[in-house]
Amino acid sequence: MENKTIMTDLYELTMAQTYFNEGKTDEIAYFDVFYRTNPFKGGYAISGGLSDIIDYLNNFRFEDEDIDYLRSTSLFTENFLEYLKKLKFTGDLYAMPDGTAIFPNEPILTVRANIIEAQIIETSLLANFNHGTLVTTKAKRITNEASNIPVMEFGARRARGRDSAIEASKYAYIGGCCGTSNVYAGKKYQIPLFGTMAHSFIQKFPSEYDSFVAFAKTYPDNAVFLVDTYDTLKSGIPNSIKASREILEPMGYKLKGIRIDSGDLVYLSKAAKEILVSNGYPDCKICLSNGLDEYSISNLLKNGAVIDSLGVGDNISASNERVNGVYKLAAIEENGEIAPKIKISGDSVKITNPGFKKVYRFYDYDTGKVLGDVICRNTESVPKDKYLLVSDKEPWKKTLITDYNIRELQVPIFINGNLIYDVPSIEESREYCQKEFESLTDRITDINNPHRYYVDLSDEERNLKEYMLYTSMSNSVSTAIENIGYQKVKKI
Amino acid sequence: MENKTIMTDLYELTMAQTYFNEGKTDEIAYFDVFYRTNPFKGGYAISGGLSDIIDYLNNFRFEDEDIDYLRSTSLFTENFLEYLKKLKFTGDLYAMPDGTAIFPNEPILTVRANIIEAQIIETSLLANFNHGTLVTTKAKRITNEASNIPVMEFGARRARGRDSAIEASKYAYIGGCCGTSNVYAGKKYQIPLFGTMAHSFIQKFPSEYDSFVAFAKTYPDNAVFLVDTYDTLKSGIPNSIKASREILEPMGYKLKGIRIDSGDLVYLSKAAKEILVSNGYPDCKICLSNGLDEYSISNLLKNGAVIDSLGVGDNISASNERVNGVYKLAAIEENGEIAPKIKISGDSVKITNPGFKKVYRFYDYDTGKVLGDVICRNTESVPKDKYLLVSDKEPWKKTLITDYNIRELQVPIFINGNLIYDVPSIEESREYCQKEFESLTDRITDINNPHRYYVDLSDEERNLKEYMLYTSMSNSVSTAIENIGYQKVKKI
Repeated sequence: MENKTIMTDLYELTMAQTYFNEGKTDEIAYFDVFYRTNPFKGGYAISGGLSDIIDYLNNFRFEDEDIDYLRSTSLFTENFLEYLKKLKFTGDLYAMPDGTAIFPNEPILTVRANIIEAQIIETSLLANFNHGTLVTTKAKRITNEASNIPVMEFGARRARGRDSAIEASKYAYIGGCCGTSNVYAGKKYQIPLFGTMAHSFIQKFPSEYDSFVAFAKTYPDNAVFLVDTYDTLKSGIPNSIKASREILEPMGYKLKGIRIDSGDLVYLSKAAKEILVSNGYPDCKICLSNGLDEYSISNLLKNGAVIDSLGVGDNISASNERVNGVYKLAAIEENGEIAPKIKISGDSVKITNPGFKKVYRFYDYDTGKVLGDVICRNTESVPKDKYLLVSDKEPWKKTLITDYNIRELQVPIFINGNLIYDVPSIEESREYCQKEFESLTDRITDINNPHRYYVDLSDEERNLKEYMLYTSMSNSVSTAIENIGYQKVKKI
Repeated sequence: MENKTIMTDLYELTMAQTYFNEGKTDEIAYFDVFYRTNPFKGGYAISGGLSDIIDYLNNFRFEDEDIDYLRSTSLFTENFLEYLKKLKFTGDLYAMPDGTAIFPNEPILTVRANIIEAQIIETSLLANFNHGTLVTTKAKRITNEASNIPVMEFGARRARGRDSAIEASKYAYIGGCCGTSNVYAGKKYQIPLFGTMAHSFIQKFPSEYDSFVAFAKTYPDNAVFLVDTYDTLKSGIPNSIKASREILEPMGYKLKGIRIDSGDLVYLSKAAKEILVSNGYPDCKICLSNGLDEYSISNLLKNGAVIDSLGVGDNISASNERVNGVYKLAAIEENGEIAPKIKISGDSVKITNPGFKKVYRFYDYDTGKVLGDVICRNTESVPKDKYLLVSDKEPWKKTLITDYNIRELQVPIFINGNLIYDVPSIEESREYCQKEFESLTDRITDINNPHRYYVDLSDEERNLKEYMLYTSMSNSVSTAIENIGYQKVKKI
């Protein structure tokens, strides 16, 4: 695997050299990765990118040629370059596994590391988190609207470059797609491969029928014809049936399916089904594609389209959205104690939750469905019998919950630079993602008017945040809060 | 370089095996890459991705492990796998160089190759073209609105994964950014690096002032402070001046710049300038950032913001748009002659321009500005004295032009699999891109209400297209048109 450790922003390295010069190489910092708004105007997101982050941290090292390049910029001293040369990731990473249902402002990943390592890894962590979460979330939204109909991901050609396409195929599969058209991703991740034929294939032959015949002879057991090149109902389907009768059936096979890639998919799929049934092909599968997304799929089903499978491209691999994940300092360690840090902003949504934190999720004891999350200080536990959930953003909304199970969402991934996490297979992540999704209520997953999920702050976290905001008129929050001796907790 | 030949859609390979079984391995096809609508509601796009496509084609080969994987799918015969094992790209590629101003429906790239190679390369060509064109276009739109103010690309963390970020930094530079924060891209492409400091750096120290002091000591010649962590005017700038007086000036340096990353950038930059000037720092540079794009930059300038440089992240590396480039069969060779192919569609924008084509661009003889483009058959030339340009999409719009220079836009890149193109350096592509942009009129580059540029079809091409459309009721267009012996031209 190519080492891309220096896929980092220059300022991470210039800040690092400053820390180095200041003798701060052993100072420990805590950073949270979180996002502020659900993508796609949705009620949730699904986390992704952790497996790529693990690869990055496992391979984290500066190669000689990286050092040579950095030297050539004249920004770094030999002492610092020597230090970089020996640098490995020696910190801790806590994270919600790929496929977890996540919500705004929750720490999805938390890094505890010396400040230099913690800074340098920021850029790659965010790039992977943002991409993974974007694609996994979109795939889950789409596959959920498709209900039990399998969705194949066909988006490689529209992705943001070749490597981005390969990653997207993986996240799409975790998010519930049944497979991909991307052969490289199929090989790398052992994801099922799918594909039919292109319009150009049909154009290449003297006639549509000739192209079906040629394909049928090569793939008699897998004859799925693209029927909309000339005229779906008058040409594509009659030619498919003819190819079945004249080529496939004499060989002991039968027309397996058709794909419709343009036009009024509701009308065409119904009419296609009628022709197929009345000609003795009731089992012939109908695959639909053409710029589909969760909304168009929902409409197809509402309007009675006949669908056995769906192909989705651009809208999974290259959706017009961003997950604007950020990486914010939450705490530092001073004399073996954890001193919380807060980012103040005139824009209230940009104020961070201070301190080393964790997230508990409450599940209804009977239904297994989620009730709400609470962001706590790391040392806290939550009551096991009843809890008053308050919406962080709309504090007048409260609900008293009882009869719940509790789960802590972050798990340790790296401790002291050692990977202690049993990295799940892609298949396991896909199953986990599906279970996570099933724990959400329909109100949360509604694509049109989702319910705002309860993300609460514990009393202790809320008090700390308010105190730090209150005292923030001082430039030096940590100095100011030292005086009250309240918010510091022993590192556990 | 890792070989990603199999970053292709499965159907390219199943179609390829069908062609193989049908004995069509030597049949030559022509495919065009083009797009149908300008991204960003703009009046133009800037082409990108060719350099990555050249890398792909130069390294095109199936490795043993690829063959093993393909065998494991049970979709391919040993004969075909043997054939793939020996496959190289032996075709021709004609393309507009990276950085060319391009318009809808023009063939930006044209592949002439045996049908198997031509199909397999489709997916990667499109992924690279779509990504490269998207980012280069957006960067040019943004840097143009910024006028003479340098724009630094800071978007790696929001890109679609790490590799996508690296490519995006390159395209952003070609599109006019002055450099990137992405160290890997800086190293790989020799792009200038830029960076200042993060809010976390300032939070990490006991006070904002302490953080500035530490940075100043390490980078006395490059002291650009981020001033908006606590309060830009009351804290950030006074602390910057204090650090200059107490640390930098005794060392023989002076405050170089400040960066403002939040708040009302117009007001803050003006007020900052006033404080800096009145305290004896008239040369201190002001850098602005915070979710900027071409529209917000245009507004900043309109409203008199004081700006020496701009940092732009997400909106370059991860814009919420797509370039929906497609790859369509344009012709095949039969008995040494080129037989045009057309894709018919109920949706008229999806009808393709048939045949092996080229594009001429007319430039005003006096101003050097573009007048219009004409898509021709490959054998055509255009009159040197006067030409009646007709808008392809709005045929009632016509303009008679005289006194022009003519340029053919596609250049040969590969011939018979050999790279014959002198691949420009990134720097050369950037300069070329700027010249291309300067050849556009303000009406075309207007971000709010762009003029529709003339993209004409030559009479010969238009007649061919209409004839093929007219005769398309037959499923087999090429057979039908063979009878009239009109549209075939000798391969040149």
